[in-house]
Amino acid sequence: MSIPSPRFPRRLIALVPAAFLLGHGLAQSAELSSALAERHAQGTYREYFELLALPNDATVPEDIRKNVDWLEQAFRKRGFTTKQLPNSGKPMLYAEFPGSDPARKTVLFYMHLDGQPVIPAQWAQKSPWTPVLKRKTDKGEWEEIDSAPLFSGPLDPEWRVFGRASADDKGPIMMLLAAIDALKAGGGQPAVNVKVILDSEEEKGSPSISQVMQAHRELLRSDAIVIHDGPMHATNRPTLVFGNRGAADARLTVYGAKVPLHSGHYGNYAPNPAQRLASLLATMKDDTGRVTVAGYYDRVKIGEADRKIMAAVPDDEAALKRRLGIARTDRVGANYQEAMQYPSLNVRGMASAAVGDKVANIVPDKAEAEMDLRTTPDSDAPYLGKLIEAHIVKQGYHLVKGTPTDDDRARYDKLASFSYRSEGADAAGSPINSPIGQWAYKALTDTFGTTPEPVRIRMMGGTVPTAEIVRVLKVPFAIIPLVNADNNQHAANENLRMGNYVTGVQTVYALMTHGF
Amino acid sequence: MSIPSPRFPRRLIALVPAAFLLGHGLAQSAELSSALAERHAQGTYREYFELLALPNDATVPEDIRKNVDWLEQAFRKRGFTTKQLPNSGKPMLYAEFPGSDPARKTVLFYMHLDGQPVIPAQWAQKSPWTPVLKRKTDKGEWEEIDSAPLFSGPLDPEWRVFGRASADDKGPIMMLLAAIDALKAGGGQPAVNVKVILDSEEEKGSPSISQVMQAHRELLRSDAIVIHDGPMHATNRPTLVFGNRGAADARLTVYGAKVPLHSGHYGNYAPNPAQRLASLLATMKDDTGRVTVAGYYDRVKIGEADRKIMAAVPDDEAALKRRLGIARTDRVGANYQEAMQYPSLNVRGMASAAVGDKVANIVPDKAEAEMDLRTTPDSDAPYLGKLIEAHIVKQGYHLVKGTPTDDDRARYDKLASFSYRSEGADAAGSPINSPIGQWAYKALTDTFGTTPEPVRIRMMGGTVPTAEIVRVLKVPFAIIPLVNADNNQHAANENLRMGNYVTGVQTVYALMTHGF
Repeated sequence: MSIPSPRFPRRLIALVPAAFLLGHGLAQSAELSSALAERHAQGTYREYFELLALPNDATVPEDIRKNVDWLEQAFRKRGFTTKQLPNSGKPMLYAEFPGSDPARKTVLFYMHLDGQPVIPAQWAQKSPWTPVLKRKTDKGEWEEIDSAPLFSGPLDPEWRVFGRASADDKGPIMMLLAAIDALKAGGGQPAVNVKVILDSEEEKGSPSISQVMQAHRELLRSDAIVIHDGPMHATNRPTLVFGNRGAADARLTVYGAKVPLHSGHYGNYAPNPAQRLASLLATMKDDTGRVTVAGYYDRVKIGEADRKIMAAVPDDEAALKRRLGIARTDRVGANYQEAMQYPSLNVRGMASAAVGDKVANIVPDKAEAEMDLRTTPDSDAPYLGKLIEAHIVKQGYHLVKGTPTDDDRARYDKLASFSYRSEGADAAGSPINSPIGQWAYKALTDTFGTTPEPVRIRMMGGTVPTAEIVRVLKVPFAIIPLVNADNNQHAANENLRMGNYVTGVQTVYALMTHGF
Repeated sequence: MSIPSPRFPRRLIALVPAAFLLGHGLAQSAELSSALAERHAQGTYREYFELLALPNDATVPEDIRKNVDWLEQAFRKRGFTTKQLPNSGKPMLYAEFPGSDPARKTVLFYMHLDGQPVIPAQWAQKSPWTPVLKRKTDKGEWEEIDSAPLFSGPLDPEWRVFGRASADDKGPIMMLLAAIDALKAGGGQPAVNVKVILDSEEEKGSPSISQVMQAHRELLRSDAIVIHDGPMHATNRPTLVFGNRGAADARLTVYGAKVPLHSGHYGNYAPNPAQRLASLLATMKDDTGRVTVAGYYDRVKIGEADRKIMAAVPDDEAALKRRLGIARTDRVGANYQEAMQYPSLNVRGMASAAVGDKVANIVPDKAEAEMDLRTTPDSDAPYLGKLIEAHIVKQGYHLVKGTPTDDDRARYDKLASFSYRSEGADAAGSPINSPIGQWAYKALTDTFGTTPEPVRIRMMGGTVPTAEIVRVLKVPFAIIPLVNADNNQHAANENLRMGNYVTGVQTVYALMTHGF
């Protein structure tokens, strides 16, 4: 069985209606059969195991450098030109596939080579750095099996490889290399110019990626960025993500008397800051969980087309509620996806004096609420922070910096301090129906069909450093996750479903062989 | 200088207008001059030092027994008959002054011989159990001085004796013994039958005092109970207290999802229990600090006469607010005293997830508020607890016992648990203008005059075990504190102002020599 030329895929031409090809002008596109993808995936499993055996916590620069060196060789032997981009002793790796053609669009593939720290004792295997193959028993438990068949025998898509970074994010890097192998084996050229950047500090929040990208702006110049990171939708359908919320945090402290007071002698007399904090927080959200701070949602604009796409996401909300153990959700949006389009105001921690064993009969001297504000592209940390601050003042509070002075205490009945800051990861969004969105959608549906449709996420609720990645290049992006949702990302027993390795190879292959 | 006969005080008759005497029928009353009180006080200082040298933490029964034995001898040598009342190895001491006359009313004087535990390192003296004499320097610091003059030389009322239990509550016991010495030296008899009970576990909440008193009900039978405990008003004016609030506590937990959730993926979707707890607490009090739980204050009845007495208490609220560091107080009552007449609902602790270093970007799974409810004689823990419970239900909450089950979670949007209990010390109140109140008032004003008036506290905000002390005997009571307000009660460097020792002797003497 031969692999069709990726740029001129005869088999594809035979299968796809002419009208479709003409309508999109994508006659050079191609998809990779699952059988071929499986063969090329299998061809990379030894390298995958080797790579997983390299510890990659970004707090250990020498470990990061070992990963970079190994990966540089892996790209070079496939014909890429490579360059290590200096980054305080933890270089990022840049790789470019040869044969760049100015007539084609250029896609920058972003992945990361570093991983979360590990607590080995929590892992059900010898070491997080010694990958193992497991299968699920009839009882639903993961059982380690001999990994030899992985490298030569027939494969079971339900097998999983367990090890740190197996899914997040070394798996996707290897899928890209396998896709390249498939492309080269077919003798073809990709339909886009392929550039790759491998971040070395993603799990630390990519603190300096903007500077690194700025320093190599010309090298990285591209028309689109594809981010292969994070999990696919829980249904494991092909998934496209066009944005993510950003993270900001805020801290609110309400002050009472100077010191904790005897609650017998001062209860009913000295204002209670825990009670006041409660009353203040109560003014910030209504009973349905919607933020009532004036203007908080004003900048969020969701069109009808977006609403349709969000409603089409196959979230099983009944199952989700069962899993979370809640009878009813907040009603910020009509469904889960819509709720994620809005900035949040979440009390992530609250404290006043003590509860439990250490509780005492006092009127506390202060009460604190820690909040996190998930931001959206239009509603950033300064915008939201200022609105909350104005809201607090409107409730009669005098805001102080730090602890109130005696003079503040004598003058103002209601005293509070409020601060907010971006956590360094802003929200990012790219239109679903932009040429990039359409290109990615077509690559996926050409490969996997439209029944069911790929899952398209307008904006995911969590925060990934997309904004930092795209900031310098200012080009559209799509996040295209490749790994199973239940991969235990960041936790013990991280794993990759081998069926996802294969579909991942098909996905990357399709992106490379579709032009736009 | 001779001491007038306590029962037929010639000097008093000469000084007090005849109309006054006739009106009250108290011709047998007497007051003790401060010079004589000082002499008899000084006569007991060696014993006072001996008694203070006996450790008296009620967790050490053998120490308690040493105190009881010592005190038994001190009372016996003054002619009292005594009896140790068994109390799990920590006997209470009962003492009765001879010459009991059924024609006279009987007063039971309550004090306690045990003390708070000590942390010796926190004391600015060799040992909390080695009493020392101190005077205040020009710089306002306490300086230890030779104690020899205390026992023989001229006395300075501003000197203080520092040591554990110097004020709370061994000082008052010694004042009573000195008052007896003065009485005997004058050759008279008290105008009331004098019984004394010394509690051995007051600092542990007198857990079994009701049982002990029940077991010796006949022995302790009396017409009034006088409690010499606690500090005088901050002005150091003669102080009468006719009640105290009780202590109850309550715990409210609001539940969210089963486990803490990623705040990016679930903020705006999974209800936040900290936010919900805040909203719930906000419904319980208004902006002025008044409880808005239906019925909470309904049982509090304050008459015009009470209001006048409360308004007359010389609280310096401007100074108090400065000291507390608050610009404005809650507005439960028109003044401090009035505020203390109402039950309180005080959030004494609050927690949800973490603040500070351990804060995490989560939607917490639960939020807790610890409350203390100071009760009043008409509004006890079950009354207040049930009102709060009904209020919570009215806000749409389903109440569970302990953690909600999966079924609870599936059925009810708003889940909380709420529990409450008395802390074992109920509120107590005795009418200010009862015969007992009038008797105590007259004893004080006969001795110290009416300029300024004694301070009369209808009900103090804090909780002392009055209710437990009076429960069995069911007679009116008055709390008549004798020690300076700044005595560092319960803390390090507890002390007694020697001027208060002298006025204390006068006070107890007057109570014994006034009939009712």
